[in-house]
Amino acid sequence: MQSKMAEKSYFSHEVEPQEVDFTLRAKAPALIMAALNAAGRDARCKGFGVDELGNENRTWVLGRMAVEFDRRPAQYEPYRVETWISGYNRALSTRNFRLLGGDGEPFAKIVSQWAMLDLASRTAVDLSQLGDAHDRFVVPDPLPIDPPCRLRPLGEGAETTERRVVYGDIDFNRHFNTIRYIELIFDRLPVEAIAEDRPFRLDIHFLHESRLGETLRIACEECEEGFGFEIATEEHPCVRASVRWR
Amino acid sequence: MQSKMAEKSYFSHEVEPQEVDFTLRAKAPALIMAALNAAGRDARCKGFGVDELGNENRTWVLGRMAVEFDRRPAQYEPYRVETWISGYNRALSTRNFRLLGGDGEPFAKIVSQWAMLDLASRTAVDLSQLGDAHDRFVVPDPLPIDPPCRLRPLGEGAETTERRVVYGDIDFNRHFNTIRYIELIFDRLPVEAIAEDRPFRLDIHFLHESRLGETLRIACEECEEGFGFEIATEEHPCVRASVRWR
Repeated sequence: MQSKMAEKSYFSHEVEPQEVDFTLRAKAPALIMAALNAAGRDARCKGFGVDELGNENRTWVLGRMAVEFDRRPAQYEPYRVETWISGYNRALSTRNFRLLGGDGEPFAKIVSQWAMLDLASRTAVDLSQLGDAHDRFVVPDPLPIDPPCRLRPLGEGAETTERRVVYGDIDFNRHFNTIRYIELIFDRLPVEAIAEDRPFRLDIHFLHESRLGETLRIACEECEEGFGFEIATEEHPCVRASVRWR
Repeated sequence: MQSKMAEKSYFSHEVEPQEVDFTLRAKAPALIMAALNAAGRDARCKGFGVDELGNENRTWVLGRMAVEFDRRPAQYEPYRVETWISGYNRALSTRNFRLLGGDGEPFAKIVSQWAMLDLASRTAVDLSQLGDAHDRFVVPDPLPIDPPCRLRPLGEGAETTERRVVYGDIDFNRHFNTIRYIELIFDRLPVEAIAEDRPFRLDIHFLHESRLGETLRIACEECEEGFGFEIATEEHPCVRASVRWR
């Protein structure tokens, strides 16, 4: 039987009042969350969502992400999330997104890299084993933006704040959730830059989980093009990121 | 012309992955947010939403709220928010909610009291002036639960933490947003009580706004039936609340 050509998936949204900031435009973390939810729903439709994988004691883990925003849509503006898997190697599956505004034009693009984790052995699953179950959903289009870049550790002069991990921060897995890390980063950016809706690129690496009751140290360092971030528990770095104005 | 009988409004939802906690049930603050959004949309449909009022330099301000939960729905469970205005006096309009699960049974009930603020004079608008524009939407059904109760200040022994108001906390008005206060409260409850999905009643009074850059002091005191809370800036109390197990 000949397999059908894989297609991109689309999810329709509208900017909800709780997603906007004081500029009455959607907060970037809320839009990134809409993209990650689209990933979850798309994987679920295709039979490799986290709930199905859970039956085999496996799960998807987001490793790295690159995000570029041109603008943020206004309250009640309709938008669509377009998502597709562009390929994979043994370690990582690459999922892409474009967020399209009410005018049909993309206002944000995302490249994300995911590993599949075996929960019993706590090791990565070799994705080449999955064969057709994964293959037939690959849309071999070019990446919409450059993939996540290398990030260097911060210098000694980074300014650090602390934040305890509380109930509202944790996900179904009892880990500090992905979007909250991104919120921590946006909470440290200069409010004027956000007010201007300045175009930016975010690169973020997820290195280690953090858990309820742990204390996060959030280090932020200004550099020529923007800001570098490192979020760590006492034991290990959890997230490294940079935000650069474009 | 005879006016049509006022009717309750309904808004359909599904519990989204980002709304669940580690029990895979929706977090209570996320469900309360769905109710407040329904209020916003309903007011907007009826011509007295915050955007229309903004044209007259007026806005709705949530004064007090009582919330009772029997259970919290699971991830992807459909639910409906039912909302209606049951009456008003010169100072306050009373808006009620029932949240109905996939089985059609209510799992949460809310009574909320709102004032209308004139933004120029910073004084409350006399709601009896509004006449028919408000009258014709009143559904004179009984309140679904007891209205918000009196709350006493906490004792000296309350345990206090601090929290700076950051970008992600503030609403379109640059004030710390309502739901974040409720999240602060849930973040201080014992995680075991949340894990058990224990039925509760929340009473909350919104006394004063707080703003970007201010530091909130969150005081929490255990009492016989649950917990009392006071959230304050250096200058004034912002929120007083109690959570009681039922």
